[in-house]
Amino acid sequence: MRLLVVGSVALDSVITPFGQVEDALGGSAVYFSTAASILTGVRLVGVVGSDYPMEQLVDLGARGVDLSGVERAEGESFRWKGKYSYDLQSRETLETRLGVFANFDPKLPDGYRDAEYVFLGNIDPELQLGVLEQMRTPRLTVCDTMNYWIQGKRKPLLELLQRVDVLMVNDSEARELSGDWNIHRAARWILARGPKRVVIKQGEYGALLMEPGRTFYVPAFPLEEVFDPTGAGDAFAGGFMGYLARSGQTSPEAMRRAMVYGATMGSFAVAGFGVRGFESVRPEDVLGRVRLFADLTHVPLAEQVE
Amino acid sequence: MRLLVVGSVALDSVITPFGQVEDALGGSAVYFSTAASILTGVRLVGVVGSDYPMEQLVDLGARGVDLSGVERAEGESFRWKGKYSYDLQSRETLETRLGVFANFDPKLPDGYRDAEYVFLGNIDPELQLGVLEQMRTPRLTVCDTMNYWIQGKRKPLLELLQRVDVLMVNDSEARELSGDWNIHRAARWILARGPKRVVIKQGEYGALLMEPGRTFYVPAFPLEEVFDPTGAGDAFAGGFMGYLARSGQTSPEAMRRAMVYGATMGSFAVAGFGVRGFESVRPEDVLGRVRLFADLTHVPLAEQVE
Repeated sequence: MRLLVVGSVALDSVITPFGQVEDALGGSAVYFSTAASILTGVRLVGVVGSDYPMEQLVDLGARGVDLSGVERAEGESFRWKGKYSYDLQSRETLETRLGVFANFDPKLPDGYRDAEYVFLGNIDPELQLGVLEQMRTPRLTVCDTMNYWIQGKRKPLLELLQRVDVLMVNDSEARELSGDWNIHRAARWILARGPKRVVIKQGEYGALLMEPGRTFYVPAFPLEEVFDPTGAGDAFAGGFMGYLARSGQTSPEAMRRAMVYGATMGSFAVAGFGVRGFESVRPEDVLGRVRLFADLTHVPLAEQVE
Repeated sequence: MRLLVVGSVALDSVITPFGQVEDALGGSAVYFSTAASILTGVRLVGVVGSDYPMEQLVDLGARGVDLSGVERAEGESFRWKGKYSYDLQSRETLETRLGVFANFDPKLPDGYRDAEYVFLGNIDPELQLGVLEQMRTPRLTVCDTMNYWIQGKRKPLLELLQRVDVLMVNDSEARELSGDWNIHRAARWILARGPKRVVIKQGEYGALLMEPGRTFYVPAFPLEEVFDPTGAGDAFAGGFMGYLARSGQTSPEAMRRAMVYGATMGSFAVAGFGVRGFESVRPEDVLGRVRLFADLTHVPLAEQVE
């Protein structure tokens, strides 16, 4: 298995205008793995408490996710509770209980260290650096972060940026990190600090892939029904990395295709509560939607330049 | 000349974080014509007051805009004054003085009635219907509207929808018209009321072209500097209609190309105050940007479906 993810394994309670769930499987590494495992094998590193419903994690194992890197610690699992607005445009965090996640210190099983594709989910940048230290010679390292670390751990975060290939964040994080509200200037600011590429996720508006001098844009899939946006960004990352790991590529062209796979997985994620949106998704469904994406922005070229 | 626009000819006073202008050339028909005239001739129908700086309108004439349909009435010209937020994401209207525009009743010069491509800018839907009555056999009719008419003139607006080919509005207008916050359901609602297509503009996020069963998406051009968003939507319409009128097409493929021309003109519009963003734009600049747009969303297909 070429692909490694390090991140949170949580229990999410989510309220949307369409219903609610309690203590459902969640966390960045879970969403990432659920999406990526449709495309390729995944090695997962995370921590759960003694109260975690392991039988649900086992479903992930059946999908091809190697769970031997999931540590089980004494104490409560990481729990998050949130509520979305009527139009799903904003959400309020009602409760965050870190539990055993507060002391998470990722230790990679020796067999994990040769992974070629590494996704560092949103955890303390010092821990993300620690994971990189444990890697042998990864071909592609991608990291996420969040406002909490941008504010509180800026120095290690900037150090991390010098050591990863791609930063993948949402637009508000890119703005906060750079101190610039213009998303394109913000991306240039980030590129000047180390990463060769930056991916900026914009929710229902799609995502941008920026490298020096060139930008790629993938829209979000047009959906008439969105049930739960939770985890869409991590599913995007799972599709992006899953495609690259499966195809063994890192070229600029492959990155563009990976963006489409990311957007495709994001569109499945929002179709159900938690990871349920993926329950019946087969590889051919992914491929079908990837093809629809290609049509969505296709400009018929023949007469375009007349 | 195949292309006709009916709309406002105004004097705009605009305050942005980057400066301000007073009584600058503005109005939907002016922005539309400035953009469209780079591609093709335009016939303009509108009204100005006795205080209008006609020497500035003459510049439009030099660009190939037929101004014989601009009525000059006794009284004050239409004036709008607005102020944008620091990030240009929202704006506040400080003053609206309709002046002679309050009694605008578009009368088409006889030579205008055989125009094939008609854009009905944002005016009272009863007046938009009146313009259609005066047309002989237009090939493509496109109309804009705004929240004021959606609330106050719903009945004639719904009648108008049954008689136009394309409704072109921004996302908040589509939501208000349909009563649905999901933009794709809102578009379907609109399509069920007459138009064969709907274009939904989303500002810095681009624009959607929806027809039954198929959606096309064009992003906004990645710009690190935006000076004044005023008129970008009308410039979009001018690029869209200008391309179609010049090429004499109405096919689905041509509509997609027209969307890219629309987005291109929108990107020039925001680069300067008022219509200044267009001052030095030549046809080859438009073509160059259209080509950049094609690259912006290009998914390299060869291996995409592996």
